Amino acid sequence: MSAETPQAYDDLLDAYRRVSNLGSAVGVLSWDQQVTMPEGGGPARSQQLSTLSGLKHELLTDDEVADALDAAGEAELSDEQRAVVREIRREHERAAAVPQELIEQISATSSEALEVWESAKADADFSQFAPVLDELVELRREYAAHIDPDRDPYAVLFEEYEPYLGLETAETVLERLRDELVPLIEAVGDSDVTLPEPFADGTYSEQRQEDLSREILTDLGYDWDRGRLDVSSHPFTSGNQFDCRVTTRFLSEDPLSALTATIHEFGHAFYNLGLPQEEYGTPLGASRDLSVHESQSRLWENHVGRSRPFWESIADDVRSAFEGVDADADTLYRAANRVYDDNLIRVDADELTYHMHIIVRFEIERDLINGDLAVEDVPAVWNDKYEQYLGVRPENDAEGVLQDIHWSHGNFGYFPTYTLGSVMAAQLYAAAEDDLGDLDGAIRDGEFEDLQTWLRENVHRHGARYRTDELVERATGEPYTAEYFLEYATEKYGDLYDL
Amino acid sequence: MSAETPQAYDDLLDAYRRVSNLGSAVGVLSWDQQVTMPEGGGPARSQQLSTLSGLKHELLTDDEVADALDAAGEAELSDEQRAVVREIRREHERAAAVPQELIEQISATSSEALEVWESAKADADFSQFAPVLDELVELRREYAAHIDPDRDPYAVLFEEYEPYLGLETAETVLERLRDELVPLIEAVGDSDVTLPEPFADGTYSEQRQEDLSREILTDLGYDWDRGRLDVSSHPFTSGNQFDCRVTTRFLSEDPLSALTATIHEFGHAFYNLGLPQEEYGTPLGASRDLSVHESQSRLWENHVGRSRPFWESIADDVRSAFEGVDADADTLYRAANRVYDDNLIRVDADELTYHMHIIVRFEIERDLINGDLAVEDVPAVWNDKYEQYLGVRPENDAEGVLQDIHWSHGNFGYFPTYTLGSVMAAQLYAAAEDDLGDLDGAIRDGEFEDLQTWLRENVHRHGARYRTDELVERATGEPYTAEYFLEYATEKYGDLYDL
Repeated sequence: MSAETPQAYDDLLDAYRRVSNLGSAVGVLSWDQQVTMPEGGGPARSQQLSTLSGLKHELLTDDEVADALDAAGEAELSDEQRAVVREIRREHERAAAVPQELIEQISATSSEALEVWESAKADADFSQFAPVLDELVELRREYAAHIDPDRDPYAVLFEEYEPYLGLETAETVLERLRDELVPLIEAVGDSDVTLPEPFADGTYSEQRQEDLSREILTDLGYDWDRGRLDVSSHPFTSGNQFDCRVTTRFLSEDPLSALTATIHEFGHAFYNLGLPQEEYGTPLGASRDLSVHESQSRLWENHVGRSRPFWESIADDVRSAFEGVDADADTLYRAANRVYDDNLIRVDADELTYHMHIIVRFEIERDLINGDLAVEDVPAVWNDKYEQYLGVRPENDAEGVLQDIHWSHGNFGYFPTYTLGSVMAAQLYAAAEDDLGDLDGAIRDGEFEDLQTWLRENVHRHGARYRTDELVERATGEPYTAEYFLEYATEKYGDLYDL
Repeated sequence: MSAETPQAYDDLLDAYRRVSNLGSAVGVLSWDQQVTMPEGGGPARSQQLSTLSGLKHELLTDDEVADALDAAGEAELSDEQRAVVREIRREHERAAAVPQELIEQISATSSEALEVWESAKADADFSQFAPVLDELVELRREYAAHIDPDRDPYAVLFEEYEPYLGLETAETVLERLRDELVPLIEAVGDSDVTLPEPFADGTYSEQRQEDLSREILTDLGYDWDRGRLDVSSHPFTSGNQFDCRVTTRFLSEDPLSALTATIHEFGHAFYNLGLPQEEYGTPLGASRDLSVHESQSRLWENHVGRSRPFWESIADDVRSAFEGVDADADTLYRAANRVYDDNLIRVDADELTYHMHIIVRFEIERDLINGDLAVEDVPAVWNDKYEQYLGVRPENDAEGVLQDIHWSHGNFGYFPTYTLGSVMAAQLYAAAEDDLGDLDGAIRDGEFEDLQTWLRENVHRHGARYRTDELVERATGEPYTAEYFLEYATEKYGDLYDL
């Protein structure tokens, strides 16, 4: 087979491996910057990162890559090889379409926006941020127009993060979630049930929390020979199939937070560690895009980590980690699933209200980018939507529209993948249970192997071989749908809140 | 001034900054590999490193760099700018002279040699290693011939590590050291004095050793905002003027070893941290080559860290770090300077006999590369030289010629810089004392500022502005010489051993 591989295909892959290795090197440098780099290292590090990113862009958009893509496109290729060409072509074309100058302008404006956002947030004053946000919106519209002038710019930007589900599918799913979750959240708010808070009165040492996080990563089968756990200000996962590291952070008054974050990042890492090693550096050895990645983290965070049998399996560990906490498994389970229906802040949200935070920003950024909403009107629309979807109204912009950093990075289209991934997680988990039978008993016994093998077989080993929609349909037997998530959420929270 | 800078010079610098940033990125990836990377990460990491090194070579040897060098060479430049051009030209010309194929061949043969060396060392059998060593010698001769076919190949290889002192100077210095140190070491061996070993009967926890290393780094003024201390199997320093990290390693039975290693690495780091920040990425912000770098580590390791006043300043700390050790400062000072005249292993050597280990390998590798010695004769010559210079004869090749890894890396010409740096350290230290007055009192009080300012002013701030020989002459007022080292060694060890 390999002897017959067309030369153009081999050339393409050689060129792409360098692009991919540059991307991996950027990943290592960024991990280091967030985890181990001494404070003073910033100025040198940003120059290093800028050189590597610039080179990556140059190599990806090189004429040789264009020529190899053309030649490979005309060659006799296997299905897998065609998938590789499809992925590289997509990356190449998007990168080549946008002038380097515009990229640099977006990067410079984002740097400025970041500072402005910080000060505007400190002053709870959106009007400070409005002009630079307007500029970023304009620049991203230009960016989208370079890629495809004939389509809605937001649809084009969305595909940067989720190339294959399509904005229309995303909108259908998000609207359905909004329509069904808003009444569910209202019902939870009206319920007489109050879920317990067994950690409310204590403080919990970082060391104990870290030990517990390590113990649970070990229980989940995290491969320490190919990973590590560190602390960073925001939890994240970085790496590939040979070396994929997670971080977490510890809140002294809320040990559930670190635990949840750790399990979430485990899901990301477990995906990367399941990519085929022999395909490292090619699209077949790379993870699918953000919604699929988020489906893996959410599956572990929510369907496993927030399940009753999981808390039954770790209740002893939790009690012995934290002196004075003598909650039983049921109490811990219910505590881990408490709904915060008066919370305004996305990163503090529970599994249910979380999606309202996403949907608000999604609807606003879509209309902003498509020109249906003016920047100056954003705070009012934001506050109205919070009142409408969550029944709470921010008192100021700091706890409203300014809460998240993403827009100051110039990122629009990224947010919805969080919710799309959660929806996908439910569909995948349902399909796994369909294939494997009820998983509760195994989870209660701390046995995750069947589920893990299922995920390896149906998701991880394919890398970017299939488009997102194909991947979901092959793994679950049906097209991507919100059905399973809504069923899961309705049943779970109906049960927890006696609805 | 900057407005008048010729365009070619700016272009050259822009191109070079990318080369330099790629080199820095390689440094970060290597540090991570040795310090934080999980075991399984190797295969991906070597691909990343190979991509970055390959790109660095391509950018350095690019025609644009050649053109910019030519144009800059004809432009009106300041002295500093001419120094920049000189350094870039040197790097460019050496890299461009050698075919990429030969580089790859050396790299592949080294990988093979490394495995063969490990097994040959385990079997204490040089004959296993001989064929691949022969191959490496041949490849390096070819390599040298590409750079300059008209000169002795060893002189060319030596310049890879120390470009400006010249092999002739190196030989003069090393011969003089050999001629004067051999009788001094003999006299030490014949002396009735036995220096104390206050740590001989205990074991010392890693934690205590680490705490002490950190304390001493703090005392020396290591800037923790721009550095960190970690553990690795061989101590090393990695970084630049914004972020320069040191590593050490702890031997449970010999706490002096980690302490010495830490102070040595401090010297390397303190040099890098003193390079001008605004010149990061250019030769003016880069350290001079290996002998100068080693002069900085040896100055701190030996002239400060092995001095009597230094032990007077830290004796309390040492005693409180290690329970049961109640040696006074004088005992600690003498223990830290014990001469191991029956030791066969370089990395276990003391300050005095160390140079015999260097000189043996230097003389042998020079003759090997220049064709005056056959590979098969190496072990016999090695053993004879040990007998002649140190009065000990290895019983087998493992404790003889196979002890060090460097030849299997294909590195020839590197070893002498260790000794040349020690010699330079003595000359610099003498010049500093000449300028500042006797430093003993300050060191006893833990005050290093005057010495540090002197080093910043006379060495660090210049980057690679001056050639090595110029730098030494400007800093000390006279040409590079072995005089000060021999004076220092003779006086110190004469005193310690009642000679």
